[in-house]
Amino acid sequence: MATTTVPGPVTQQKLEELSEIQESGAVSLFVNYEQSLGNYMLDVDGNRFLDVYTQISSLPLGYNHPDLLALLDDPVNIKLFINRPALGTFPGHDWTDRLRSSLLQVAPTGLNNLCTMSCGSCSNENAYKAIYMWYRTKERGGRLEFTEEELQTCMVNQTPGCPTYTLLSFKGAFHGRTMGCLATTHSKAIHKIDIPSLDWPIADFPKYMYPLEEHTTHNEHEDNRCLEQVESLIHTYNKAGNTVAGIVIEPIQSEGGDNHASPQFFQRLQQLAKTTGTALLIDEVQTGGGPTGKMWCHEHFNLQEPPDIVTFSKKMLTGGYYCKKEFRPNQGYRIYNTWMGDPSKVVMLQEVIKVIERDNLLHMATQSGDVLFKGLRTLDQKFPQHINSVRGRGTFVAFDAGNTAKRDAIIGRLKLQGIHAGGCGDKSVRLRPSLIFQPHHAHIFVEKLETVLNTL
Amino acid sequence: MATTTVPGPVTQQKLEELSEIQESGAVSLFVNYEQSLGNYMLDVDGNRFLDVYTQISSLPLGYNHPDLLALLDDPVNIKLFINRPALGTFPGHDWTDRLRSSLLQVAPTGLNNLCTMSCGSCSNENAYKAIYMWYRTKERGGRLEFTEEELQTCMVNQTPGCPTYTLLSFKGAFHGRTMGCLATTHSKAIHKIDIPSLDWPIADFPKYMYPLEEHTTHNEHEDNRCLEQVESLIHTYNKAGNTVAGIVIEPIQSEGGDNHASPQFFQRLQQLAKTTGTALLIDEVQTGGGPTGKMWCHEHFNLQEPPDIVTFSKKMLTGGYYCKKEFRPNQGYRIYNTWMGDPSKVVMLQEVIKVIERDNLLHMATQSGDVLFKGLRTLDQKFPQHINSVRGRGTFVAFDAGNTAKRDAIIGRLKLQGIHAGGCGDKSVRLRPSLIFQPHHAHIFVEKLETVLNTL
Repeated sequence: MATTTVPGPVTQQKLEELSEIQESGAVSLFVNYEQSLGNYMLDVDGNRFLDVYTQISSLPLGYNHPDLLALLDDPVNIKLFINRPALGTFPGHDWTDRLRSSLLQVAPTGLNNLCTMSCGSCSNENAYKAIYMWYRTKERGGRLEFTEEELQTCMVNQTPGCPTYTLLSFKGAFHGRTMGCLATTHSKAIHKIDIPSLDWPIADFPKYMYPLEEHTTHNEHEDNRCLEQVESLIHTYNKAGNTVAGIVIEPIQSEGGDNHASPQFFQRLQQLAKTTGTALLIDEVQTGGGPTGKMWCHEHFNLQEPPDIVTFSKKMLTGGYYCKKEFRPNQGYRIYNTWMGDPSKVVMLQEVIKVIERDNLLHMATQSGDVLFKGLRTLDQKFPQHINSVRGRGTFVAFDAGNTAKRDAIIGRLKLQGIHAGGCGDKSVRLRPSLIFQPHHAHIFVEKLETVLNTL
Repeated sequence: MATTTVPGPVTQQKLEELSEIQESGAVSLFVNYEQSLGNYMLDVDGNRFLDVYTQISSLPLGYNHPDLLALLDDPVNIKLFINRPALGTFPGHDWTDRLRSSLLQVAPTGLNNLCTMSCGSCSNENAYKAIYMWYRTKERGGRLEFTEEELQTCMVNQTPGCPTYTLLSFKGAFHGRTMGCLATTHSKAIHKIDIPSLDWPIADFPKYMYPLEEHTTHNEHEDNRCLEQVESLIHTYNKAGNTVAGIVIEPIQSEGGDNHASPQFFQRLQQLAKTTGTALLIDEVQTGGGPTGKMWCHEHFNLQEPPDIVTFSKKMLTGGYYCKKEFRPNQGYRIYNTWMGDPSKVVMLQEVIKVIERDNLLHMATQSGDVLFKGLRTLDQKFPQHINSVRGRGTFVAFDAGNTAKRDAIIGRLKLQGIHAGGCGDKSVRLRPSLIFQPHHAHIFVEKLETVLNTL
């Protein structure tokens, strides 16, 4: 239970101070990270929360995990944390081994090439570039040299050096906030308004009705409708010379409202990408790293072959992407920046992966997710006037409230009950606990939610 | 002196291994970071180099600085390094104090607002967004609400929600490699080729002749010519409805070849920005943090008022930007992402700033830079057939070789002499030592360069 209003007086005081130097409209709580532990976050007012939002889904092992703290007992690691190299040019002596025992250890089947980056937006921006290069190489019929005209025109942003390629994205999608990413993001107006963008194709994402088993006809129709739109948009844009080089999609649209699509939808989308010659990028920035009960959410989809590129960040601690070999650029400095990620994050990821395996945390995500899902289904039957559309995989679970105000009320009252949850889309509550979230925590969540729903 | 060829056999072996999992065309050396110290970098073949490139200018205090290593003796800092928050929503209890004693402590005069980011590209991308919002707010005459049409059209990348704004950049500029940044980058074709871009205005950057005192007429003419082009481009783009919202410029074009422009050029550019109603962003990602002898290179220019936005990264360890208050967005979530930087980098920056002040490192950059500059001027008089156009501020110094092949030969032979330098532009050698580079290191560099020039 919270001991003050939330946000409490100390948070409010600190918010005023921070606002003097920084726009702080999104600040919700000031946190005592030193004393937060495991699944529990302590705020500066002394309120302790069971955290099912975990820094927007970016903490794999909760707060102050002993195995992560222990990393810095080792002087070798301290030096790794202090000396940040320009990884693309001067990697450390053991860099390849570290990549093998971290990112490659959990690579999606068939994707044995990778690239590290610092954040989700940079991961997607650079994956997009890898797609353009791949497409252009195809168009050149494999010729590797650039023409003089291409080299000269690209310096002033003109064709043919800078081709008029586009990427197809989906309504409700979130892929980041830098210019290329933002052109494929369509979750909330406040992310996009006043920012110049690009005329790129945008398809509908299926809007399912829940529970799924009661709405198979409607939902299958949604799949068909959206896939037809994808195909039609690709043809229209290609015909106009704005060639669609790739399709970008989340396995579960997260910021946009935890919108799911069926495995069949993804299988058919992959097929469509192949027949139209476009690349398929699956953005696992939020879904990747285990919360769905598999390391990668797209592994639930039984795709016929691996996607072409998979991007990651958040729970993986480092950003980056995995890709098929043909998506590697054909020479250096094409996908590049000063840091290309940060070895300190990869050192932490090595440890996280050890803990995931040792403690069987993917299995636990499935188990705890079961408790959440069943508990929420019981509650949506008991309180149909308040919540509906329970959906999810593993602990990556969400439900809808009737409207935005009710959703916000639920999240606010959960805080007073000592539960810290987050919203997404217009009216959804999303659960994003870390991988150490156990079934008994799931029971606590369901119980507290019931208490809240009783007060509405 | 190097004890092997460079790259040596161990680097070559490791490069083959890394290339199996990653495109590695830009990898130059594998480094032993544990045993690198101060100004000296040790590679995996046992070669020790005086490092005047320092991870593409991103190490403020060289390798394994004792004051940075000591940070991790403190359990409080260990927790800060391990628990990475979503800073835009859940900052730590002491976040404001940490910003005040780090970034704000060294803020450019008049720029008291700031925003933290993870890297240089994200810093510029988000600063660009701040410019668009500022411009749009001006166009709205201060109206803060968005219209329904704006809110709806921005979701599908269309006007008026996504206005057709442009940014003016300069030939030879480098501002990063994500899509918005890359549209303002024009340093090397390999960065841009095959990537779709935007029809934005691109002006010439002055091309000076050296030594400056012998070419005042030519150089003043260059200033005039380029400024007239800026003005003309702004009018042309504005007239066509592709409104120029801002001008983006480096105080010294770094990747593009260490191209300098005069203080008068920058003063007049600022004036031009004001008369045309565009914002002026100075990108100090490479120049900022002290190497020019001042914390910010633009402080050498005696501008009439502060620039509107200054971006930083590299030696500052954290990315981000400073801005005038009117460049703050008017509400939350407009400039935002999951991490918004990383407190561990800010903790390191706090310490770096303490050391800069305690050890008077800005003064040392001036002194060591003097030794470099005078030594290089002596050499360019002795070897005019090999090098020319010595230029720089502080240790941020460069010179040209006659052509690319000769430049590369100089850098290669310097390595064999135990000096690790970098190139930029087509034919320049750039010096980017860290702030602990002392006059005697400068003497060593000059002496070794003379040895190399004697062998050409």
